[in-house]
Amino acid sequence: MTQAATCDLCKLLSAPSDALVWRDDKLSVVLVNEAGYPGFARVVWNGHVKEMTDLAPADRAHVMNAVWQVEAAVRAVMAPAKVNLASFGNMTPHVHWHVIPRYTDDVHFPNPTWGEAQRAPDAAAIAARSALLPQLRAAIAANLSTAS
Amino acid sequence: MTQAATCDLCKLLSAPSDALVWRDDKLSVVLVNEAGYPGFARVVWNGHVKEMTDLAPADRAHVMNAVWQVEAAVRAVMAPAKVNLASFGNMTPHVHWHVIPRYTDDVHFPNPTWGEAQRAPDAAAIAARSALLPQLRAAIAANLSTAS
Repeated sequence: MTQAATCDLCKLLSAPSDALVWRDDKLSVVLVNEAGYPGFARVVWNGHVKEMTDLAPADRAHVMNAVWQVEAAVRAVMAPAKVNLASFGNMTPHVHWHVIPRYTDDVHFPNPTWGEAQRAPDAAAIAARSALLPQLRAAIAANLSTAS
Repeated sequence: MTQAATCDLCKLLSAPSDALVWRDDKLSVVLVNEAGYPGFARVVWNGHVKEMTDLAPADRAHVMNAVWQVEAAVRAVMAPAKVNLASFGNMTPHVHWHVIPRYTDDVHFPNPTWGEAQRAPDAAAIAARSALLPQLRAAIAANLSTAS
């Protein structure tokens, strides 16, 4: 795959990573280390495809089912005020979904995490949420195992 | 519906609006007037529901099918460099999806439209894209009529 040399997501998926929570033949789920946002997950299509409508309808449904399973795990384990979902790909045009637990005390709330900061991070709240990550990894894997 | 008094999306859906492009018994599609972003569409669940995983699986699929039909119309008519999709709801916790045509000359590219501005708006490019809106409205309605 020629994109693997230049695409950050192709590179991520081609190497072993502690971030990987789940992988099947079509997609991967990773928990990423975004400062202040423990539980920030990405659902990444394994192939280098640009837009959701470049995928066959059944493949789109497979991606979104994974997004719903991750959202359900995030809600069950992390109890966020809201879940944010987004697929941009302006810099990395390789289909991937951000699944982000949001809290009223997080740095950007109620803005998107890409928006203007509203307050300083709450270190104690972030530490408490970080402690849930092993449980979140297990819940994501369990949900996706059941749904597959 | 008691939320109609306080929820901006409940209010939008309860009044006639030129923004409305499509409506069925479950969801509505509107073209919104976001400065610098002609073709910015929203797919809005008609009921006041907070998270995608609060919807039944068939309803989630119905929402996403509408998102794909809008994305396909946006790509066919507006020829963006990339389509951005997002569902936040931090301020308005009523399921809605943003479908945004992005261009390398738009104010925020490659950032999300909620991120830091990168350049001044290109008035000529925005005017040329605005001229496509009647065609986009027709394409969205046609795609959704066929898909329903």
